[in-house]
Amino acid sequence: MVNKIDHIGIVVKDADEALKVYSEMFDFEVVEEMGGPGGEFKTVLVKAGNITLEFLQPLTDEGSFAKFLKERGGGLHHVSFATNNIKHELKTLKAQGRKLINEEPMSLPKAKRAFVHPSAAENVLIELVQRAQPYPEMPNIKIT
Amino acid sequence: MVNKIDHIGIVVKDADEALKVYSEMFDFEVVEEMGGPGGEFKTVLVKAGNITLEFLQPLTDEGSFAKFLKERGGGLHHVSFATNNIKHELKTLKAQGRKLINEEPMSLPKAKRAFVHPSAAENVLIELVQRAQPYPEMPNIKIT
Repeated sequence: MVNKIDHIGIVVKDADEALKVYSEMFDFEVVEEMGGPGGEFKTVLVKAGNITLEFLQPLTDEGSFAKFLKERGGGLHHVSFATNNIKHELKTLKAQGRKLINEEPMSLPKAKRAFVHPSAAENVLIELVQRAQPYPEMPNIKIT
Repeated sequence: MVNKIDHIGIVVKDADEALKVYSEMFDFEVVEEMGGPGGEFKTVLVKAGNITLEFLQPLTDEGSFAKFLKERGGGLHHVSFATNNIKHELKTLKAQGRKLINEEPMSLPKAKRAFVHPSAAENVLIELVQRAQPYPEMPNIKIT
């Protein structure tokens, strides 16, 4: 099952500017900065309270983020659901005949990830994430 | 301050179909169904684990949701941040000169709400929500 929103992905023209704006407006702070594969984009993960956003800044004119920025001027790009068993989720979705972008999870250093195709989910790009451990500095959440 | 994602708003062509799809894929269940003002749209609030989504179905050809559906085929529409003090949030944003859609919170039966203009927030439509109490059946969350 999916149990919480891991993060919301937002395509931006300039991640530093986005951080400045969201920091001033809502006290968002940086959790992690990363370069994308091939230097095509960079990501800045920010949080406020229990909200995590991922700013996605294209660094070249190529790729889906650059296309999204050009066509829409940026904005809400994907929503990421946390799960404890990404393999089971993908198996269930495949058995239902849902269109997936990643049929097998991508293994990143700290997490396994896979995208469901928007055509399967009311035009919403959904990422499934299974993390080895919560983000650094995230508070512990107890559901009672 | 903002402390969690209250919900994510998704524009859909058919809320019943969206519910069916999300229910099959991720076990989402209905929390609340409501008609919008003037019969222009209906909303269906659904949840899975600690994730709440708001399906927004336009019922006429008029209004911003119908426009969004026509132009984009639906999808991610807004993100809603929960706060304990919406008046303070709006005062802070106004003092910063940020463009707001609602300068004063709209008082709904169970919540106060206000929208920040996307031009103020990297092309993301942000809703601020202060609820009288959590959604029915939502688990209590303790941040330790």
